[in-house]
Amino acid sequence: MKLNIPILLMTMRDGAVSDQAAQFVQRQLVSRGVESVIVDPEDYHEKKSFEQEHVQPWSEIMKAADALVIVSPEYNHSMPGPGKEMLDTLYEEYEKKPVAICGVSSGTLGGARVIEHLKTVMIELKMVAIREAMYFAKARELFNEDGTIKDASYEQWMDKMFTELFWYAHVLKAGREGKIDVGL
Amino acid sequence: MKLNIPILLMTMRDGAVSDQAAQFVQRQLVSRGVESVIVDPEDYHEKKSFEQEHVQPWSEIMKAADALVIVSPEYNHSMPGPGKEMLDTLYEEYEKKPVAICGVSSGTLGGARVIEHLKTVMIELKMVAIREAMYFAKARELFNEDGTIKDASYEQWMDKMFTELFWYAHVLKAGREGKIDVGL
Amino acid sequence: MKLNIPILLMTMRDGAVSDQAAQFVQRQLVSRGVESVIVDPEDYHEKKSFEQEHVQPWSEIMKAADALVIVSPEYNHSMPGPGKEMLDTLYEEYEKKPVAICGVSSGTLGGARVIEHLKTVMIELKMVAIREAMYFAKARELFNEDGTIKDASYEQWMDKMFTELFWYAHVLKAGREGKIDVGL
Amino acid sequence: MKLNIPILLMTMRDGAVSDQAAQFVQRQLVSRGVESVIVDPEDYHEKKSFEQEHVQPWSEIMKAADALVIVSPEYNHSMPGPGKEMLDTLYEEYEKKPVAICGVSSGTLGGARVIEHLKTVMIELKMVAIREAMYFAKARELFNEDGTIKDASYEQWMDKMFTELFWYAHVLKAGREGKIDVGL
Repeated sequence: MKLNIPILLMTMRDGAVSDQAAQFVQRQLVSRGVESVIVDPEDYHEKKSFEQEHVQPWSEIMKAADALVIVSPEYNHSMPGPGKEMLDTLYEEYEKKPVAICGVSSGTLGGARVIEHLKTVMIELKMVAIREAMYFAKARELFNEDGTIKDASYEQWMDKMFTELFWYAHVLKAGREGKIDVGL
Repeated sequence: MKLNIPILLMTMRDGAVSDQAAQFVQRQLVSRGVESVIVDPEDYHEKKSFEQEHVQPWSEIMKAADALVIVSPEYNHSMPGPGKEMLDTLYEEYEKKPVAICGVSSGTLGGARVIEHLKTVMIELKMVAIREAMYFAKARELFNEDGTIKDASYEQWMDKMFTELFWYAHVLKAGREGKIDVGL
Repeated sequence: MKLNIPILLMTMRDGAVSDQAAQFVQRQLVSRGVESVIVDPEDYHEKKSFEQEHVQPWSEIMKAADALVIVSPEYNHSMPGPGKEMLDTLYEEYEKKPVAICGVSSGTLGGARVIEHLKTVMIELKMVAIREAMYFAKARELFNEDGTIKDASYEQWMDKMFTELFWYAHVLKAGREGKIDVGL
Repeated sequence: MKLNIPILLMTMRDGAVSDQAAQFVQRQLVSRGVESVIVDPEDYHEKKSFEQEHVQPWSEIMKAADALVIVSPEYNHSMPGPGKEMLDTLYEEYEKKPVAICGVSSGTLGGARVIEHLKTVMIELKMVAIREAMYFAKARELFNEDGTIKDASYEQWMDKMFTELFWYAHVLKAGREGKIDVGL
């Protein structure tokens, strides 16, 4: 079964290194046979544009998704506003699907704090927030211009994260589709 | 399939109303056909008693468990120490099992902050922290001496929590037992 | 000394009850002899409008401020995006000033989770996040149309919050103005 | 004015590298003319030993303190139980004093998550949780046996943290002692 896992970019600041991180993650997903688009808040963000009717494409993407990856820089120990606005526009589209979070920072902590804040948000949105996460530290120096990564050790972490994410994607999908007796 | 869901009490302060809350939860689990014991840190807590060899019973209980319920008062917006010590003694016993958290407070917020802190801890322990939670507010007046509850609206919330918890307990168990093709 | 304490509204959703809460807080501040304006992200929020040059008025307001009050609804256990964007546009304007946070929710918890998330953000912005907070619960029924409050017990809480906020406003101002020997 | 700043160690696991971190911090405080003792939960932790009468020494230490430094390893993204028990035993002793938090971890993140959790706890205890913190990463390799540090860049961070902590210690002390007109 081919998985479909979109990537939500949390920021729209020009030149954000998070773009590179998202492209790196997308390439890694595609190389594992996963269908994946990057969702950019820039495409949704005009005055009042997060109203329900404007976010239809984002809603369709999440409806079709088996899981979600969030790529987020850390702004003042928490999440960027535009991405939070995106997250707050949907609800049942997320239900009982797993989510993995990739933090991005110019310092050495790789977004460790925004990852924790986002976990509690995603739980409230009824997603399964998995343990494995990416901590892209010193991100300005981390990526090559072609979207590859300079430090190969991140690929091992990514493998670990995808192993957990795909496991939940498959298992929860079976559950949602009623293939497992849940005793009701 | 009969589920087995222990209850971890996070505190050992004498006379804690959390005991009553834990007994209420246990009664509710048993009435739904679930096997459930209450684990009390008092039984484990002596000097250095949280060392690996002393927590064998707790390890056996979690190994056999399909899910976990945590009952925790909120101390200064976070968790009581003894319960945290209990949580920190195990690891793989928790993996890929769901956990529901019941906050207990004498104020009106029902432990809303300790629930969030515990969610991030339980994710790190590889559990699935579910959305639905119990917020036992004004807990000193909430329970009758026989462990029943004065405000029946809590039973509806409990139903909601158990519906989600049991769903995950069944689905993740099927996953752990290899009954679902996870594409590996 | 007359204090100057602006109120930052975190949301711009039409008809948000947070507007009423902000007006209530403003009235309470003014009645205590404090100068206070409400800052609304709607006035700043157009495509890319949070860029540095557009937020000059907000910057001037915070430069002149002795303290800050944040009024925030809770969206999915965390903060609304537009307010977070506002917060992320300034930096030294906040330094060594106290901040009080007022949560707003339609449920019974009064924004308890967004308050905690905002505390860690405000610390990172070098503000002093004070303990006392307002938890405006069941906010849709809480305010009269004229911005007064139906449940007078909130005014006691507000007194407690302002006592703490004003104490820090005065003490930190004396510190920033070099009136206290800090041993350097 | 000589400052008095005790150090609370949050863990009592044998051989914890946090001991070394605490000793390093103590040495740095003393070299700056500060009086400082290390408070170890091991000295308080027997069955029920956290009861009020047993923590009298800890209470006296905090009463006399101008500020607090916490040294804490990160256990499963949050705080060790014994230290949390210590924190929960006192209350007014902490009021209106600043606290700095030093995270310790064997990984690269230096306790970034436990620092955030502790900030919200310390605010609830009416302390001023300051922004600057220490992130002792890869701590097992970081300290020499004589309590000095191998990576000198940490000393710069420590300077930054102490500058902020001492500023608040002096300013808040002046406030507590009524030397500043707070308009009441």
